[in-house]
Amino acid sequence: MTAWLEQVNWGNDGLLPVITQEFSTKQVLTLAWMNRESLQLTAENGHAVYWSRSRQKLWHKGEQSGHQQIIKSIRMDCDQDAILLEVEQIGGIACHTGRHHCFFLELHDGEWQATEPVLKDPNEIYR
Amino acid sequence: MTAWLEQVNWGNDGLLPVITQEFSTKQVLTLAWMNRESLQLTAENGHAVYWSRSRQKLWHKGEQSGHQQIIKSIRMDCDQDAILLEVEQIGGIACHTGRHHCFFLELHDGEWQATEPVLKDPNEIYR
Repeated sequence: MTAWLEQVNWGNDGLLPVITQEFSTKQVLTLAWMNRESLQLTAENGHAVYWSRSRQKLWHKGEQSGHQQIIKSIRMDCDQDAILLEVEQIGGIACHTGRHHCFFLELHDGEWQATEPVLKDPNEIYR
Repeated sequence: MTAWLEQVNWGNDGLLPVITQEFSTKQVLTLAWMNRESLQLTAENGHAVYWSRSRQKLWHKGEQSGHQQIIKSIRMDCDQDAILLEVEQIGGIACHTGRHHCFFLELHDGEWQATEPVLKDPNEIYR
């Protein structure tokens, strides 16, 4: 049943980097991490479940904010040590700062400059 | 001069995951790794330089194959521990298997299935 999970080259810490891309816009939303259980749950349930390295627990994306990520496809790379998800981003907000996506710092003239608007106050997202 | 490099949250191993996305198609090409020196070289030289974890050395992408990645933008995420590059992929081939990109294994019915054509024989790319 889970032979496909055995084909993944999990890191020494049991984790794998996961790129999540918005299906409709192809915007890269987040870089997060999964362990074996979270990848299995993601495939079975059809929404993204990560492993939170800071909290050291499963992280059902959107459990607090409602901003779930509905799975369109699950892909793996040639070395079998990275995952690419295509998702529908519920609410249009993937980042905990209230932005559409997390990669809003762009290097310009030797400085990281914030480039994306905050769409919703984080205090309103996480009550 | 390099204050921006100090703002990056490098991992315990001194590395960071780097997503590389094709500027024209928005296809995610690769997930690779950088250390501080490779990120600095990438910003200074204008083409992607990674850190090869398998070879434990700097990896000037395209040095053998000619398939360089010309930098269009360098972005960092909210936690400052992942990088997103937008690039022009010279030769249209990012993967060492001769495919356009590395994420060619797609999960279907509990199996990883190869979905992308090999555009060029790797034996012709790496002589």
